[in-house]
Amino acid sequence: MGGERHKAFRPWFQPEVVSSLPPMTYSVVELIEAKRDGKKLDSDQIAWLIDAYTRGEVPDYQMSAMAMAIVWRGLDGDELAAWTRAMLESGDVLDFSHIPAAKVDKHSTGGVGDKISIPLAPLVAACGVAVPMMSGRALGHTGGTLDKLESIPGFTTGLDKERFAGILAEHNLVLAGQSATIAPADKKLYSLRDATGTVPSIPLIASSIMSKKLAEGLDGLVLDVKTGSGAFMKTLEDSRRLAGTMVGIGNSYGVKTVALITSMEQPLGNEVGNASEIRESIDVLRGGGPADIRELTFALGEVMLELAGIDGGRDRLQQAIDDGSALQKFIDVTRAHGGDTTVIEDPSKLAVAPEEEHIAAPTDGYVTRCDAMTIGAVATRLGAGREKVDDEVDPGVGITLLKKIGDQVSKGETLAVVRFAEPQRWERQRSHLQTAWEIGADPVDPPGLVIDRIG
Amino acid sequence: MGGERHKAFRPWFQPEVVSSLPPMTYSVVELIEAKRDGKKLDSDQIAWLIDAYTRGEVPDYQMSAMAMAIVWRGLDGDELAAWTRAMLESGDVLDFSHIPAAKVDKHSTGGVGDKISIPLAPLVAACGVAVPMMSGRALGHTGGTLDKLESIPGFTTGLDKERFAGILAEHNLVLAGQSATIAPADKKLYSLRDATGTVPSIPLIASSIMSKKLAEGLDGLVLDVKTGSGAFMKTLEDSRRLAGTMVGIGNSYGVKTVALITSMEQPLGNEVGNASEIRESIDVLRGGGPADIRELTFALGEVMLELAGIDGGRDRLQQAIDDGSALQKFIDVTRAHGGDTTVIEDPSKLAVAPEEEHIAAPTDGYVTRCDAMTIGAVATRLGAGREKVDDEVDPGVGITLLKKIGDQVSKGETLAVVRFAEPQRWERQRSHLQTAWEIGADPVDPPGLVIDRIG
Repeated sequence: MGGERHKAFRPWFQPEVVSSLPPMTYSVVELIEAKRDGKKLDSDQIAWLIDAYTRGEVPDYQMSAMAMAIVWRGLDGDELAAWTRAMLESGDVLDFSHIPAAKVDKHSTGGVGDKISIPLAPLVAACGVAVPMMSGRALGHTGGTLDKLESIPGFTTGLDKERFAGILAEHNLVLAGQSATIAPADKKLYSLRDATGTVPSIPLIASSIMSKKLAEGLDGLVLDVKTGSGAFMKTLEDSRRLAGTMVGIGNSYGVKTVALITSMEQPLGNEVGNASEIRESIDVLRGGGPADIRELTFALGEVMLELAGIDGGRDRLQQAIDDGSALQKFIDVTRAHGGDTTVIEDPSKLAVAPEEEHIAAPTDGYVTRCDAMTIGAVATRLGAGREKVDDEVDPGVGITLLKKIGDQVSKGETLAVVRFAEPQRWERQRSHLQTAWEIGADPVDPPGLVIDRIG
Repeated sequence: MGGERHKAFRPWFQPEVVSSLPPMTYSVVELIEAKRDGKKLDSDQIAWLIDAYTRGEVPDYQMSAMAMAIVWRGLDGDELAAWTRAMLESGDVLDFSHIPAAKVDKHSTGGVGDKISIPLAPLVAACGVAVPMMSGRALGHTGGTLDKLESIPGFTTGLDKERFAGILAEHNLVLAGQSATIAPADKKLYSLRDATGTVPSIPLIASSIMSKKLAEGLDGLVLDVKTGSGAFMKTLEDSRRLAGTMVGIGNSYGVKTVALITSMEQPLGNEVGNASEIRESIDVLRGGGPADIRELTFALGEVMLELAGIDGGRDRLQQAIDDGSALQKFIDVTRAHGGDTTVIEDPSKLAVAPEEEHIAAPTDGYVTRCDAMTIGAVATRLGAGREKVDDEVDPGVGITLLKKIGDQVSKGETLAVVRFAEPQRWERQRSHLQTAWEIGADPVDPPGLVIDRIG
């Protein structure tokens, strides 16, 4: 426990406990054995382990055995709080106490067509919430907010601490990538988990997400925990457990945290891509856009206002759409990030890939399935996302969904329009994409979107 | 699966399966995930994994996660056979088919005062069994056959392959350390397991032991699986599981394998040390020695004769003691190893540490406990064993037990005589050693020695 790591700590880290720790070392093997045998690690042991791992004193081969023991045995509430705190304290902890507005962020566990951050953050900022948003990039079948924003020419998401804080102070909003100085322990551990089959552990997932979010200097946090076939958590039970675990961590750190459990069976909205999702987001900020995107934006926004102590709920949000202040906030922040604001005024200037194909309904009936995982994977392979970390994203590639679950279709009618740049990539994906839809004889209701609130 | 690794394989490795394997690679993460989720790995996957790990292509941090997943999920019979075969095939597999006698070895899972190999190997060799024995060194609270043999001046246990085979061919007996070319995968994996809390897995322990023993080119193998407070396996149930697992592996390779489950609550015999255990072994070869050492030597020897197809059982063994051929075999093999045979004719020439202290009975009664773990740990710390791999062993240090479980004692009577070289070491151990004995008011029976036979 070097003193250096604690210089940035905040009151809700229980400084009387942390700062009184003596310099101490443990036998890593004994810690692994304890966890392997289902025993509890204490907070000093966890703080030492994470710190020693981050400094390279504990080697990867011991940490991977510990991670597998945690996949097996789990972490209880006390262990999880200590684990998250240790990862959080491995790097910078931001402090925006000089900004008078309440700082509230939103984090989604990742879905297909999930552009909610883009209309949501300007909307709540226009209502008086400060949103220091740090987002991620596309990986696997899910898109990334940063890639979407970067389809606006000139929009820069890699900011240093000073520029991040400056844009936030001026606009109550900043939309950036995560700084390398936030939770370096999590970066190192996440890479190791990815290579050692130790990703799917609810405590490890929860502490990974929360260690980054709690470093943002927030007063409140709303979590959008996806559930269903297109989500990382396939079952409602696992999604509830993950949500409850993260809410518990957030609240134990004094950050008011609420999770909404939301459906990820079919993509959100009608657009899956990068530039096309910016267009759809602008539609929402203008008072239009698909009903599901509007619903989820308002549901999450209502919680963000509540956590910021701002009255008025959905009416307040609707007012910011109606009076143009939400759209203006997006224009202002885009300018602050160096982006070309003329594409917001005229979204037809955003990139569109040159080739276009239609997917036709094979039969009359009602759409019973519009599979997020399949559509996300095809969009990724066409160039809208990344299969590997260093793949390039093509902003103009995308899939426009014209029919979703519950919609009536006639044989031959277009289900989706696919835009791509490389015909040979499309040829390999065509038959796969067609399997995303199922059409039945009887009418079905579209799935509910917000399933539950936790916290 | 490189061809090089298979040049030494023997008929019982099912060559039609092994040699037809294509060169192939797997995703290590997928193999770890499969084991983590309780799925079965196939033999090609296991062969590839062990080979790639031994070659350094699979890093330690992935193998340690796999090892923890195996501690959690286990390996079934097929997986275990493949795992053992892959480790065995990572190095040399010896072939003594030019030696007409049946090759049979004995392996013990390790105990305190366990010098059984030293009288046993010459005894059965004198009866016509060929014994290509590879032994280990002291570590932790248990002694090592090699350290005991090296208390005979000049006795060399580090032999090259040619000298090993030459001594065996001439004497039907060789008593050496394990060659570095035997099962290098096991050496590498064992070091990793030791550092990652992944030692206590019955399939990993069984495959580690058996991969080395099956490389010795044996026709038969008897396993002495210890159970009780002084053994690695503390419970009879775990000892039976380990024994059954190893017997299964041995038989599946066509090596007739039998395990005896034997008690390790108190030390075997009256001597715990190195030179002193050689003296006690010579006593047994001369027809004397403590009853428990004689009993276990004969019990294991009887199984070794049976596995070698030699008739006569205990009578045949007794004859080799009575006619002096067992002792002569030990003298002959000692000479072949470069050892000073005059110490066998006059064991008083063996090393004795200069200092001596007595442990006295604190009360009248019957010995109810004479704890192997405590006595072994104290002997180690006095210099008879090793706490770390590179510690030096003092051959003259030892503890002579005058009273064991069931013996009647009077207050003040000597329970044990301790011989040591460094008084300051003894001062730190005195009170610990005294806790090894418990004395009760009522007579008790000494514990049974051979508890069960498996196979």
